[in-house]
Amino acid sequence: MSVTAARGFAAAGSACGIKATGAADLALVASTIGPVVAAGVFTANRAAAAPVVVSRAHIVATGGRAVAVVLNSGNANAATGPAGLDQARRTAALAAVELGCRPEEVLVCSTGLIGIPLPFGAVEAGIAGLVAALDPGPRGAARAAAAILTTDTRTKEVVLTGGGVTVGGMAKGAAMLAPDLVGPSASATMLAVLTTDAEVDPATLGAGLEAAVAGSFNALTVDGCTSTNDTVLVLASGVAGPPTPGVLEDLLAEACGDLAGQMADDAEGATKVATVTVTGARTAADARRAARRIAESQLVQCSLAGADPYWGRVVSEAGSSGAELDPGRLSVRYGGVEVCRAGAAAPHDAAAVAAHMAGRHLAIEVDLGLGPGMATLTTTALSHAYVDENMGTS
Amino acid sequence: MSVTAARGFAAAGSACGIKATGAADLALVASTIGPVVAAGVFTANRAAAAPVVVSRAHIVATGGRAVAVVLNSGNANAATGPAGLDQARRTAALAAVELGCRPEEVLVCSTGLIGIPLPFGAVEAGIAGLVAALDPGPRGAARAAAAILTTDTRTKEVVLTGGGVTVGGMAKGAAMLAPDLVGPSASATMLAVLTTDAEVDPATLGAGLEAAVAGSFNALTVDGCTSTNDTVLVLASGVAGPPTPGVLEDLLAEACGDLAGQMADDAEGATKVATVTVTGARTAADARRAARRIAESQLVQCSLAGADPYWGRVVSEAGSSGAELDPGRLSVRYGGVEVCRAGAAAPHDAAAVAAHMAGRHLAIEVDLGLGPGMATLTTTALSHAYVDENMGTS
Repeated sequence: MSVTAARGFAAAGSACGIKATGAADLALVASTIGPVVAAGVFTANRAAAAPVVVSRAHIVATGGRAVAVVLNSGNANAATGPAGLDQARRTAALAAVELGCRPEEVLVCSTGLIGIPLPFGAVEAGIAGLVAALDPGPRGAARAAAAILTTDTRTKEVVLTGGGVTVGGMAKGAAMLAPDLVGPSASATMLAVLTTDAEVDPATLGAGLEAAVAGSFNALTVDGCTSTNDTVLVLASGVAGPPTPGVLEDLLAEACGDLAGQMADDAEGATKVATVTVTGARTAADARRAARRIAESQLVQCSLAGADPYWGRVVSEAGSSGAELDPGRLSVRYGGVEVCRAGAAAPHDAAAVAAHMAGRHLAIEVDLGLGPGMATLTTTALSHAYVDENMGTS
Repeated sequence: MSVTAARGFAAAGSACGIKATGAADLALVASTIGPVVAAGVFTANRAAAAPVVVSRAHIVATGGRAVAVVLNSGNANAATGPAGLDQARRTAALAAVELGCRPEEVLVCSTGLIGIPLPFGAVEAGIAGLVAALDPGPRGAARAAAAILTTDTRTKEVVLTGGGVTVGGMAKGAAMLAPDLVGPSASATMLAVLTTDAEVDPATLGAGLEAAVAGSFNALTVDGCTSTNDTVLVLASGVAGPPTPGVLEDLLAEACGDLAGQMADDAEGATKVATVTVTGARTAADARRAARRIAESQLVQCSLAGADPYWGRVVSEAGSSGAELDPGRLSVRYGGVEVCRAGAAAPHDAAAVAAHMAGRHLAIEVDLGLGPGMATLTTTALSHAYVDENMGTS
């Protein structure tokens, strides 16, 4: 169901010809009741792609209202200059004509190769059919979720209910995946569209989305590469009325967490998924700094690929992260087993650690022993498959 | 010749039993004329290894004088706690007894696995024989240069002369290689020992070394991982008298540059070596930020491995580097051929770019078009071999 589970939404997906393979590459999520409340967060990358620039401006221009989101895969429409911007705007305008709304009420997202002009003729030819195919049932949602994939091997969808409301969502993202999403004035490319039937004002929806993203997409790093295109959008139809206080925020957080987890599991070459938790940092910023340095370390990621509990690399990365650190106070746990204490090897059950490392989901915990700061990031192994996937563009 | 080319120095290398393979693992470089002027730069990693802590303290304690450097490979003596510190100090003391000098006049360096206690018995048993084997000829230098290698496939040596003086040096480093070396109070582990017969005071020697390191080792990043052990030391015997002004600084810079280049060429999995130059940044700091982000990007490094001139990734990394950036002013060149102009694809000779990418040494130039800031970093491809080398510790 995903994006059509909440009342007031329909979706569609099709192959319009952007991808040379003929795979689905154009998706649409639309309100069935006219303009609804909308909020978004966008990549902090200063070379933001054309659709990011346009969607951000549209949300500001409407004060947080939208009718639809058009998403394409196969081409990022990034590093495409003024022509790319024009095409992103024209994509919105074309959909607006078909949907009978204002261009500013259409948001756009793209994902795929950077630096290649968008084959706009394909988009132009595909939009009308996509609007005609809008389906408020599960088939529409499934088709939309499939049409946004790039190197993803499967669709990423979620539906949650509670407090009288429903939140549904779809997402994609498998590499260039270290989202750094900031508020309305805010990359793998990751794209996510959420819908809800909750009645909520734009500011509250935006705040809920930002909080949800902080603990989910922004806490995921596959390769430390923050895309030009990362976008998370949420549309709220209001059809179900106001939710029990706090429930919408919780559902958004849970939905984003679920989708981020699906991304990690399906990331390029991700033979292992690991959570890196840093506690005891002097400050929360220090904890984030250390956790990110460890999680994005090529050496730590290679160790994960090899199921090697080489905690010395973890200590080294913590030491070079810029976080305040006293080696004598530092400890490291793999799967809950303390392998390093006071900055040096700790006697431990090597068989228990080996058993943990043999699994697919790993947990590395680092305690700096200095203060209350803590942070958690999810990362993945760096394996041959990641290298293979990214050696060429074809 | 390397470290024994300058008059006043002898060297030795042997297998003392740290490496289970029986390969050479203990090296000594020593003055033949008693205490000489010394300077060093050390890793900025806050989890600095025991030998870094000890050598830094020794240089401070002597005011920049030393008799010898003991180096071992096969074990980093890092994350080894107070016991490791004690062993680093005892290593210096043992050598001092044999050499007839003060313990503070002996500097120590280690490289190898982190977090494993140094097999001190092996070091203890090896020192006397090493001192006895000190050789002021080329054989001593070659043996020392071989004994400091880890995953390096060849020794790294340099000899330069000019202005009446000689500078020689040896180095090692193949991964965990993103040196961030800072002054006397300042990891691939990289180690380098330089010697010169120039007559120079400690402060001038230290300043020359810091300047030389800034443009060489600190401008090299294989994997973005800054080791716990990185150390560059220089000893100056003074036998040749004062050099022509400026010459020593030039020779040090050239020697460090040469050794850093040898490291890049021999880095783990380095099927390609690339220089990333950023010009036109608002500030030099911005240029360094952008160059480092591009050079350390897993995606850019995979593109290099695939000989793929995927400049879109370069633009994306520049955009997420934190450097000020206006996509409309940005251009990118591969091998001197402009592939991106004003932030979008530029018509270019694709065959010329392909020919460049087929080579082993690549040049990526990014102009941000905003100001005078510039920076250059050397990096390497991320290939299967790097992953293989680092999946396990055995």
